[in-house]
Amino acid sequence: MALKSFIEVHPDSHFPIQNLPFGVFRPDTASLARPGVAIGDYVLDLSAVASASIFDGPILKDSDCFHQPNLNKFLALGRPAWKEARATLQRILSSTEPVLRDNAAFREKSLFLMSKVEMLLPIAIGDYTDFFSSMHHAKNCGTIFRGPQNPMPQNWFHLPIAYHGRASSVVITGTDISRPRGQGYPSGNSPPYFGPTQKLDFELEMAAVVGPGNELGKPIDVNDAAEHIFGLVLMNDWSARDIQAWEYVPLGPFLGKSFGTTISPWIVTLDALESFACAAPEQDPKPLPYLAEKVSKNYDISLEVQIKPDGQKDSCVVTRSNFKNLYWTLTQQLAHHTINGCNLRPGDLLGTGTISGPEPESMGCLLELTWNGQKPLSLNGITRKFLEDGDEVTFTGVCKGDGYNVGFGTCSGKVVPSP
Amino acid sequence: MALKSFIEVHPDSHFPIQNLPFGVFRPDTASLARPGVAIGDYVLDLSAVASASIFDGPILKDSDCFHQPNLNKFLALGRPAWKEARATLQRILSSTEPVLRDNAAFREKSLFLMSKVEMLLPIAIGDYTDFFSSMHHAKNCGTIFRGPQNPMPQNWFHLPIAYHGRASSVVITGTDISRPRGQGYPSGNSPPYFGPTQKLDFELEMAAVVGPGNELGKPIDVNDAAEHIFGLVLMNDWSARDIQAWEYVPLGPFLGKSFGTTISPWIVTLDALESFACAAPEQDPKPLPYLAEKVSKNYDISLEVQIKPDGQKDSCVVTRSNFKNLYWTLTQQLAHHTINGCNLRPGDLLGTGTISGPEPESMGCLLELTWNGQKPLSLNGITRKFLEDGDEVTFTGVCKGDGYNVGFGTCSGKVVPSP
Repeated sequence: MALKSFIEVHPDSHFPIQNLPFGVFRPDTASLARPGVAIGDYVLDLSAVASASIFDGPILKDSDCFHQPNLNKFLALGRPAWKEARATLQRILSSTEPVLRDNAAFREKSLFLMSKVEMLLPIAIGDYTDFFSSMHHAKNCGTIFRGPQNPMPQNWFHLPIAYHGRASSVVITGTDISRPRGQGYPSGNSPPYFGPTQKLDFELEMAAVVGPGNELGKPIDVNDAAEHIFGLVLMNDWSARDIQAWEYVPLGPFLGKSFGTTISPWIVTLDALESFACAAPEQDPKPLPYLAEKVSKNYDISLEVQIKPDGQKDSCVVTRSNFKNLYWTLTQQLAHHTINGCNLRPGDLLGTGTISGPEPESMGCLLELTWNGQKPLSLNGITRKFLEDGDEVTFTGVCKGDGYNVGFGTCSGKVVPSP
Repeated sequence: MALKSFIEVHPDSHFPIQNLPFGVFRPDTASLARPGVAIGDYVLDLSAVASASIFDGPILKDSDCFHQPNLNKFLALGRPAWKEARATLQRILSSTEPVLRDNAAFREKSLFLMSKVEMLLPIAIGDYTDFFSSMHHAKNCGTIFRGPQNPMPQNWFHLPIAYHGRASSVVITGTDISRPRGQGYPSGNSPPYFGPTQKLDFELEMAAVVGPGNELGKPIDVNDAAEHIFGLVLMNDWSARDIQAWEYVPLGPFLGKSFGTTISPWIVTLDALESFACAAPEQDPKPLPYLAEKVSKNYDISLEVQIKPDGQKDSCVVTRSNFKNLYWTLTQQLAHHTINGCNLRPGDLLGTGTISGPEPESMGCLLELTWNGQKPLSLNGITRKFLEDGDEVTFTGVCKGDGYNVGFGTCSGKVVPSP
C-alpha cells in the first residue's frame, strides 16, 4: 500500500508524502527565514521540528542546520544527512505516526498554509553555471544562427558545454523581471542599437543544487557525482536575444542573461525523483573515459510553459517538453565541471540549458518556437514573436506516479517595462 | 612636507603612509581572521584599532565592520566610510600623533610583522567578472586565432566585452596551482586530446573590488561608477589555452579558466591611487551616451611579471606593462555591467582582462609573448613556450611617487603537477 500522510493531500497536488521537497520560507515579513518541506497545501517548519528534538538520527541530532536562513549548511552534510532527514519527515508525516498527528499544539506551531507564507531563495548561491545539454536546442540555435549545413559546434558531442552565469541576479518565483536595456547589432553604418531589448525570451530549464562539493584541485568521479546533487528546481533563464547576439563573440553570453534568472522555491530531492529515473539517450561518439558512467540516468519530468498576457484572464500553453530530452546527464555535467580541479560548493546551481524536445511543439524558448521571430505564435487570438511587457511566464514540472505526483510547483515571473 | 609615519618605512617599500591598503590576515592559524592595513613591514590590526574606540567618525564609531573575517561589511558602507577610515588611519600612523606612537602596549597588540602573519582572501567574492579591455591584447589574440586581416571582433570598440568567471576558485597569493586536466582539439579523426593541459599560461590582470553596488533593475550611471569601486588588486587569471580553444565556442571560456585565479592580498584604494590618475586613451568611435563619462581616468601603475623555474635561484622578468594601457576604463566597465539592471554586490571582483601594452616586450601572457608557442622565450638559458611544472609566476605592481611608492606587493603562484 502506498505511503500516506495524516494531512489530506489532493491527488493532483505536487506535494504528497512521496515528494517532501525542501525550501526556505517565513510566516510573515517580521519573522526569520527558516527551512521547510512542502506537504499538500502546507509547509512544515523544520526549525520547529528540530527544536522539538525530533531529528534523532546520528547526523542531525545535534546539528543546527535547520536553524539557518538557507539550506547551505544542510547541503554541506551530504546524502547520509539528506536520507536521515527524509526518513524522519516521512515517518512523522505518515498517517500511522502520532507524534505530530495527535499533538494539536505542535501542529499549530509547525504547519503553515503554503498560500499564507512567503517563499524565499532556498540557497545562498556561490556560483551559478549554465550548461547547454539539449541536443535539440543546440541544433535549432545552430540552424537559426549558422544555417542548416552544420548546426552543431564541433565540440558538442564530446563535452557538456557550459558557461559561468551570474549568481547575484538569481531570484525566486514571483519576482518581476525588468526589461533590460542594452546594445544590439548596428544596422548598416549606424552605431549599435541601444535601448530596451526587443527580443526578450524565456528559457525552459531545470537546475541541480549542489552539495557537498569538492576541494580545489580534486575532481569528482562521474560515478560519485550523484552524491553531490541534492535535488532539482525549475529555472527560467530569461534571455535578451538581441543583446546576446551582439555581445557574445568571443567570450560568451553576459548582459543578455545577467538581468535575472528565476527559480522555483521547492528543491525536489534526487531521492524523491528516483522512482521516475529512466535511461539517458545512447551517446555516439562514446564519451571519453572521465565522462563514461556505469549507470546513465535521466528523469521523466513533464515540463510545460504558459504565457499570460497582461489583462487577459487565461494563460496559454506555449510548449511541452520533458527533462528526459537531455543528452548530457546531470552527473556528466558535474564531473566535467570538476575535471580541471574547479571546486563546487554547497548551494551552487548547475542549470541544464534550455530543454527542447524533438517536436516543434516541445521547443524550450521563443527563439526556437517562433524561429527568431519569423513565425509568430498565436496566444488565444493575439500573437507573440518575443515577450511583451506585462506577459507572465509560468513553468510547471511534474512526475506522474501511480495515484500521486512528485511535482515542482511553478516557476513564474512577469515582465515589467524598462526603468 | 610629505606625510610621514612614526613607523620607519624604507623608500622602496610599497606600503608607506600614503598607501594604507586593506587586507585580511591572522597572526597565526589559531587566531581569527581580521582586517588590517599595511604600513611598511607591518600590518596594523583594524579589529584592535576598533576595539580601542579609535574610529570615532560618525559612520564607523558604532560599526562592527572591522570585527569581521572579510571586508565585505566595510565595503558595503561606501566611500564616506572608506574616507573616514583612511583619515583616521593616516592620523594615528603619522609621526606627529602620539596615540599609537607613544603607547607601547597598544603597539604590541595592534602591529604585526607582515612576514609573520598569514594573509587571507580579503573579500567573500559573490561574483567574479572578467573583462577584455586591453586593445593590444584583443588584437594580438585575434591575430593569433583568426589572422591579421580582421583581428578585432566587430563589437569590441562599442562595448567593454566581458564574461562571468568562477568565484569559488579565486585564491590568495602563494596558493599552488594544480595543472588542470581537460580536453583539447582532436587531431585528425582521433577523439579529442585528454590529459594535463599542454598550454598553461598566466594572464597579467588587475581587478576592481566592488562596494556598495546596486539593486537589481537599477543601473549605475557611468559618472557615479567610481563611488562603487573600493580599490584594486593584482590578478593572475591562469589559463589553459588548449582547453580554452576547444571548449569556448559558442559560450565562452569555462574550464580553461576556472581551475584557479590568484589575487594579491592588499586592496589599494582609489583614494590612494588618485595621485597617479592619468587620462584614459581617446576612444574612437565615441562610446554610446551611457558609456560617455565626464572624466575618463586611468592610473599609471607599472606592472611586471617574473617567472622562476623550479630549482633555479633567480627569477626572470618576462614582461613589463602598465595599467594605463587599458582602453575601457574601470568606470565604463562597471556602468556597462549594470546597464541591463544586473546587480553588483560588495566584494564582487571585476577583472580588467590581460593588460598588454603596444610593444612586444609588454605583452601580458605567454600566448602573446611566444605567439602561441611559435617563438619560445629564453629565461636565463632555458626556454619556455608555456608554463612548466614547478614554475613560480610573480606579478608586481607599483606607482612611483615623489620619494615614495604606492604599491600592490606581489601576486604569486607556483604550478604543481596534475593530481
